Amino acid sequence: MSKGLPKRSEDYSLWYNELVKRADLAENSAVRGCMVIKPYGFSIWEKMQAELDRKFKKTGHSNAYFPLFIPKSFLSKEANHVEGFAKECAVVTHYRLKNDPSGKGVIVDPEAKLEEELIVRPTSETVIWSTYKNWIQSYRDLPLLINQWANVVRWEMRTRLFLRTAEFLWQEGHTAHATKREAEAETVQMLNVYADFAEKFMAMPVIKGVKTESEKFAGAESTYCIEAMMQDGKALQAGTSHFLGQNFAKAFDVKFATKEGGLEHVWGTSWGVSTRLMGALIMAHSDDKGLVLPPKLAPIQVVIVPIFKSEEELEEISVKAKEIVDQLDDIGISVKFDDRDTYKPGWKFAEYELKGVPLRLGIGPRDLKNKTVELARRDDFSKTVINFETEDLITIIKDTLDNIQDSIYQKAKSFTDEKTTSVDTWEEFVDVLDNKGGFVAAHWDGTAETEEKIKEKTKATIRCIPLDQVKEDGLCIVSGKPSTGRVLFARAY
Amino acid sequence: MSKGLPKRSEDYSLWYNELVKRADLAENSAVRGCMVIKPYGFSIWEKMQAELDRKFKKTGHSNAYFPLFIPKSFLSKEANHVEGFAKECAVVTHYRLKNDPSGKGVIVDPEAKLEEELIVRPTSETVIWSTYKNWIQSYRDLPLLINQWANVVRWEMRTRLFLRTAEFLWQEGHTAHATKREAEAETVQMLNVYADFAEKFMAMPVIKGVKTESEKFAGAESTYCIEAMMQDGKALQAGTSHFLGQNFAKAFDVKFATKEGGLEHVWGTSWGVSTRLMGALIMAHSDDKGLVLPPKLAPIQVVIVPIFKSEEELEEISVKAKEIVDQLDDIGISVKFDDRDTYKPGWKFAEYELKGVPLRLGIGPRDLKNKTVELARRDDFSKTVINFETEDLITIIKDTLDNIQDSIYQKAKSFTDEKTTSVDTWEEFVDVLDNKGGFVAAHWDGTAETEEKIKEKTKATIRCIPLDQVKEDGLCIVSGKPSTGRVLFARAY
Repeated sequence: MSKGLPKRSEDYSLWYNELVKRADLAENSAVRGCMVIKPYGFSIWEKMQAELDRKFKKTGHSNAYFPLFIPKSFLSKEANHVEGFAKECAVVTHYRLKNDPSGKGVIVDPEAKLEEELIVRPTSETVIWSTYKNWIQSYRDLPLLINQWANVVRWEMRTRLFLRTAEFLWQEGHTAHATKREAEAETVQMLNVYADFAEKFMAMPVIKGVKTESEKFAGAESTYCIEAMMQDGKALQAGTSHFLGQNFAKAFDVKFATKEGGLEHVWGTSWGVSTRLMGALIMAHSDDKGLVLPPKLAPIQVVIVPIFKSEEELEEISVKAKEIVDQLDDIGISVKFDDRDTYKPGWKFAEYELKGVPLRLGIGPRDLKNKTVELARRDDFSKTVINFETEDLITIIKDTLDNIQDSIYQKAKSFTDEKTTSVDTWEEFVDVLDNKGGFVAAHWDGTAETEEKIKEKTKATIRCIPLDQVKEDGLCIVSGKPSTGRVLFARAY
Repeated sequence: MSKGLPKRSEDYSLWYNELVKRADLAENSAVRGCMVIKPYGFSIWEKMQAELDRKFKKTGHSNAYFPLFIPKSFLSKEANHVEGFAKECAVVTHYRLKNDPSGKGVIVDPEAKLEEELIVRPTSETVIWSTYKNWIQSYRDLPLLINQWANVVRWEMRTRLFLRTAEFLWQEGHTAHATKREAEAETVQMLNVYADFAEKFMAMPVIKGVKTESEKFAGAESTYCIEAMMQDGKALQAGTSHFLGQNFAKAFDVKFATKEGGLEHVWGTSWGVSTRLMGALIMAHSDDKGLVLPPKLAPIQVVIVPIFKSEEELEEISVKAKEIVDQLDDIGISVKFDDRDTYKPGWKFAEYELKGVPLRLGIGPRDLKNKTVELARRDDFSKTVINFETEDLITIIKDTLDNIQDSIYQKAKSFTDEKTTSVDTWEEFVDVLDNKGGFVAAHWDGTAETEEKIKEKTKATIRCIPLDQVKEDGLCIVSGKPSTGRVLFARAY
């Protein structure tokens, strides 16, 4: 807790990097592009995992585990998939080291070359569909609803903590169905699970939509996504759900005997979210003082800081504090009583602001005398003094946490709405992108050429064709050709 | 569910392999030595993880995540560690593939060779201690108590599902302390956590002990272990906890400012258990009908199978069954009501025996009339008829599950005791190993030479020097030299 953070308005990117490090969320490791997720950061990720896992199980999915390695030849089986994924990846070519004859350290043993190279999974469709071939024979084996929590590796050249790292953690769902309709319904169901999680737990509003052909997953028929708006006006893709059609079933020859006695290829989906969500969470809500965490994902929801000069004062305050701790524990609110005497209250206040603890309780000797506690909210810095004899402190704390969760969401929602602009001309489009940022809703002629041209000129991409797109006749801002509805453009992470 | 399993008495190894596959626990993947953990198997592993994770957190540890890759040079920094781990491992040498100019698939891009090869972690001491160097400056930063759930890779030549696979899942704890005494206490504490988990949750008795110099972890000062006895008389190392001394602190230059103003190397520990525990769980309890699972780790603790001829009968039974399901749900007992009409009750009975569901409830039309339910225990196949009007069915179910948990443990305990033999001569030693198996408690002169000689001649290794070793003068069964206590030998997995 030395100097303050850089300001968002001055250098958003530096603010983000510093915040991630100073709040003990993650740091770069000795291995290029790979991060270390620190205990505090990991405890937020664990809360995300727990809720997502609960939602997956509630919708009928089971967890399983598939190999880290993918034989090189597997990647080539689905033509589009290989184009998308077989390029920047970690390749295992040998399986043994030996002592360097020079006596210094170890070298790769040239004798131990693999017959076929193994790729560290960038995503697991290929290895999973090669397994599903043996698991699926009949309609009775369907649907197959499986999820995997795993690490994956994509050899990114430019990396940023959480947002783009060579190795990252994620979950990948892979399902197989008897009919196209079922698979499509699953794709949409999981998109809704993600959107619900983003909005209710991360307090982050998202736009649900479909990717364009150019932006869809390599190997999918269509890709659904949730897109969120960050405070610097850039969009972030927070989760994707792919309808795979029969592409992987055909590539890996996965057929099933139908009820009617036929033999058909199965229909597939895949869907995933990753530690990238940590980046989204940080950028969506935090401020120049540090993290702002929604109470539902905060590892510590309430911190109690005693204000004392003598040990006797601390002892008296501790009695009351521990009573509050017990009561909050009982109703499942995570609370920390920081009674360290090695740090001053002011230092602690700044520390918990940096760490994003949603609610701080301050208790000093005068409070004890007056039977009061001071509540300080992290999100808006507002303070309230509660009399714990005449008021129901525990209920107030619980309600305040709910209120913070809601306020953070509403603030982000207003921001996203404010940062969404409809434009009708190319000039407006460029002006909004450059001077206001955010989502730009504009008419597009539906061609990959126009999409590419816009990307080249402005670095803005089509984030999605929103699911709630209003049918509206208009003209493409570039080609002037007719369009039947607006799509959302933005510069993005 | 076609033919029965092979019998343990006829081919234990085949029985194990078939059981793992038929009970849907795991299977070999398309990648040599790597397994697929199937949903049912993974749900048991998840229960193990949840309880272990709870125990780790209760003893003050936090989870974090460190990189999958380790720079080759890191492995060489601790002299003994490199000898133990740098040999059979997966080596990443390139970071890109490209289209094969011949037009067929992809090839490794020779231009994309890494400057320094990366090793897929076989264990993470090196990469973690290189990180700890930056995290530890002062005694205030200690102790550092971190755990990681991760996948690791060791290029094993002969693999067996769960017991020995190239990739496996595990947890690895890595802690740093200011004093030797604290680090030693942590090592023993985590050994006790493992032993407690094995005995109370896996219902598997274990011997706590210390490894000999030859068997200890590469880089440790000493290795503590828990050893369990399998039904074929072979031992299995179920968990290890290492006191690392200052070895890794010295290798990675991790020093801290002491309270007194000095500068010292920190003291370390590491400890881990892996999906190998799944193999131990299976082999410790299961029988020729299939899995026997301790209720505390069974994904389904109770299954209700309706016995019916008509739909009306099923409907009537369902009303009662669902009432029981709700009541069990309420007290946290996981229950499945299998009302499928595509399978006969007999088929279902065999299926749930194979899957190791601890308690089966059968309800037929006659039961309904008599207000009874039949309880069938998986562990001893005993059956009881309970009148649900005059008796408290839910309490009986709960107590029966507790009783099964206890019985499975007692049975394994008696077996382990019976399979532990003290011998005083080489002839007895060989005779017991060959004809009875199990642990052989014998005097040993304490030298690596004798240990190696015994291993060469009998394939038996010293599993551990038990922590509860009785001081007793004796003569080494090989050299005749004096010894002060017996050590435990066994052939092992």
